[in-house]
Amino acid sequence: QLHALCDELHPADMADLLGLLHEDERVRLIELLGGGLPAETLAELDSDIRESVVLALKPEKLAEAVADLDTDDAAFVLEDLDEEKRAEILAEIPVPDRIALHQALDYEEESAGRLMQREVFAAPAYWTVGQIIDRLRGSDDLPDRFYEVFVVDPTFKPVGSVPLSTLLKTPREVPISQIMSDRELRLIPVTMDQEEVAYLFEQYNLISAPVVDESERLVGMITVDDVVEIVHEETHEDMLAMTGVAAESGLSDSVIETARFRVPWLVVNLFTAMLAGSVVGAFGATIEQIVVLAALMPVIAGMGGNAGTQTLAVTVRALATKTLTFSNAARVVMREAGVGLVNGLVFGVLLSLLAGGWSLFMSGDPDRSVKLALVTGSAMTINLVIAALAGILIPLGLHRLGADPAVASGIFLTTVTDVTGFFVFLGLATIVLL
Amino acid sequence: QLHALCDELHPADMADLLGLLHEDERVRLIELLGGGLPAETLAELDSDIRESVVLALKPEKLAEAVADLDTDDAAFVLEDLDEEKRAEILAEIPVPDRIALHQALDYEEESAGRLMQREVFAAPAYWTVGQIIDRLRGSDDLPDRFYEVFVVDPTFKPVGSVPLSTLLKTPREVPISQIMSDRELRLIPVTMDQEEVAYLFEQYNLISAPVVDESERLVGMITVDDVVEIVHEETHEDMLAMTGVAAESGLSDSVIETARFRVPWLVVNLFTAMLAGSVVGAFGATIEQIVVLAALMPVIAGMGGNAGTQTLAVTVRALATKTLTFSNAARVVMREAGVGLVNGLVFGVLLSLLAGGWSLFMSGDPDRSVKLALVTGSAMTINLVIAALAGILIPLGLHRLGADPAVASGIFLTTVTDVTGFFVFLGLATIVLL
Ligand SMILES: [Mg+2]
Ligand SMILES: [Mg+2]
Ligand SMILES: [Mg+2]
Ligand SMILES: [Mg+2]
Ligand SMILES: [Mg+2]
Ligand SMILES: [Mg+2]
Ligand SMILES: [Mg+2]
Ligand SMILES: [Mg+2]
Ligand SMILES: [Mg+2]
Ligand SMILES: [Mg+2]
Ligand SMILES: [Mg+2]
Ligand SMILES: [Mg+2]
Ligand SMILES: [Mg+2]
Repeated sequence: QLHALCDELHPADMADLLGLLHEDERVRLIELLGGGLPAETLAELDSDIRESVVLALKPEKLAEAVADLDTDDAAFVLEDLDEEKRAEILAEIPVPDRIALHQALDYEEESAGRLMQREVFAAPAYWTVGQIIDRLRGSDDLPDRFYEVFVVDPTFKPVGSVPLSTLLKTPREVPISQIMSDRELRLIPVTMDQEEVAYLFEQYNLISAPVVDESERLVGMITVDDVVEIVHEETHEDMLAMTGVAAESGLSDSVIETARFRVPWLVVNLFTAMLAGSVVGAFGATIEQIVVLAALMPVIAGMGGNAGTQTLAVTVRALATKTLTFSNAARVVMREAGVGLVNGLVFGVLLSLLAGGWSLFMSGDPDRSVKLALVTGSAMTINLVIAALAGILIPLGLHRLGADPAVASGIFLTTVTDVTGFFVFLGLATIVLL
Repeated sequence: QLHALCDELHPADMADLLGLLHEDERVRLIELLGGGLPAETLAELDSDIRESVVLALKPEKLAEAVADLDTDDAAFVLEDLDEEKRAEILAEIPVPDRIALHQALDYEEESAGRLMQREVFAAPAYWTVGQIIDRLRGSDDLPDRFYEVFVVDPTFKPVGSVPLSTLLKTPREVPISQIMSDRELRLIPVTMDQEEVAYLFEQYNLISAPVVDESERLVGMITVDDVVEIVHEETHEDMLAMTGVAAESGLSDSVIETARFRVPWLVVNLFTAMLAGSVVGAFGATIEQIVVLAALMPVIAGMGGNAGTQTLAVTVRALATKTLTFSNAARVVMREAGVGLVNGLVFGVLLSLLAGGWSLFMSGDPDRSVKLALVTGSAMTINLVIAALAGILIPLGLHRLGADPAVASGIFLTTVTDVTGFFVFLGLATIVLL
């Protein structure tokens, strides 16, 4: 009954169900299912539960399932296991598959070589449409799904491609050299990073792409269904990285493991926050005399933090989509500074009216209230301009240094906005009000 | 020469080039190109420059290009124009295309009806593979590119699909009823939101999907190349929304326009930050007597803000990918609270040692230093637990209310962490230290 229920689920839904279960329930369900899972379900597992599921399977059932999968999915299932366990499973897999898998696992994680499937269909340019169709009907080692025929030269270098829909529209006797095109063809080197692969697919609307080795020989293909997942992964990675979370963490990790992923940048943040705190400490004498400054100072710093984070998010996005490049960087920086100035003037005026009005109401001292209003407003304006500049220059700087523009940029940014917010505000107050 | 140069560029790269140019240069380049652009380039324009490009084109060249495009891309090109301008262009387009475009534009933006192309190939289940191939070779109103044959019943309801690679592997005489499957088939209603469409494509590894009207009749299809762009759009939308940026803004918007997109949530933030400020104000007497509190208080609030933002980013991601649902919400909330407690203890102990040691060094008063250390450490621990809870409960709450869990959640979160950070710390200090 349970078997029937699980069979009815789409593999992707079955994999999600396993992810929703508690660790113990998950192991128990796999036991109840006889220690095996369909190959397609294994390919759909989320990376944070993959290892625990794979370890719960009976080795022979796992080997059987892995042998069934395309190389990209098989490598995905095995990549988390330690050497020993992996060798044990690989030993049970037929030799040709085993060699292919060894090669796949030799490529770096997140490289095109790891992402590609070795199952790929290619044909020489002098074949006719009819010859290709006959070959497709007769062959039994074709990829499960494919979307175009890659046309190769005698050295097996891809020189063009023919979408299957074009192939089907064309009479049998036409040679594919006549219908192939190289306009949509992008050769992907095995060493290319998945982020770059995803960019090529998105930019050129690719459905599949040939992967080539150092000598430009066709060795595999990457398909768009896997790229959709990469796009998701990479943008979320940026979102998490901005806040200082290592992207490997998932919902099923334990509390300690999760804390471990988040602590490193928080440690950095503790020290940067203390830097901000020490700025406040340096103006202790001023605050002691004008306590209202302590109440206004988090408003100025906090507004800077949030406005700067807005610029930061826009910049990280623009760098990822390559709409921000060195050719337009100067113009975009000027624009962000302009936005910061506009926001700064708007909120500077607003806050100075509020602070001044409130001070007048409480103290009845017009001179002092005007001064407080001026100090507050100017500090807010200056801090929002600096927040905007920090929001764009921090990721641009990281990018220029070859680092990931997203990594922990949120933490650097709030440090800048807190430090300058406190310094400008308390500094101006010390000069004008004391 | 310029023509030759631009012709060599892939349409997507040409569109990017236009995006990098300054507004005036852009108009000038289009003039130099004779007031026209290839249809495919129009389909690739970024939304923030689309309107300005379209308005720079000669109407008859624009109409010609639009008539060339699939309905989804044609609608995309025209959707920003005002009624009048749009009617002018539509009038120059041949009648059948014009009707299709009117219908497409009648569907809401970001709905499946707007995203689909009306060009689609379908066949009844009793046809054989050979019949389909003959039909494909003879027909001239096929979609440019397609990836599967949708199998329809006599009411034109999709009942299955056959990937083109399966079609090509199968002998001519086999009826498609024998090779079609409904396992991969997801009918997409015209009203479905693009976010849901993207979820289906990602979850079920779809390459194309049939779109149906209220009576489940096939009316169009959505293809994965467009979904890749949606996935990108939606995850970036979440990232920007968290910081309170309306996602429509692009790098080519003017300063004023951009500020307008960002001001609304900053206004909210001004008032929430003043709330935090007024908490500090309420403890003015305490701060006046123990000024070091003013220096420690941004450390506690800032750490809460960044730790909470980490939880927030993880939660928004988990909700978007549906790995966080009501069935496991309680467990995940407990886990985040646990992570908050672990972080809270780690950083509470660290900060209390630093604060206590520093106070001892400055004042030489051990009793007072121990008290300050205790207050600081407890406030940090409590604030990090609350930050974790806020980081998960704010987006969960927004989601439960049917709102977008990402919208401005960063602003709400920093308010909570600032308010509770200040309140707990200054409150404890007032009780213990005064
Ligand atoms: Mg999944
Ligand atoms: Mg594209
Ligand atoms: Mg694959
Ligand atoms: Mg896959
Ligand atoms: Mg990456
Ligand atoms: Mg990245
Ligand atoms: Mg803050
Ligand atoms: Mg583009
Ligand atoms: Mg998938
Ligand atoms: Mg399309
Ligand atoms: Mg398109
Ligand atoms: Mg949306
Ligand atoms: Mg959304």
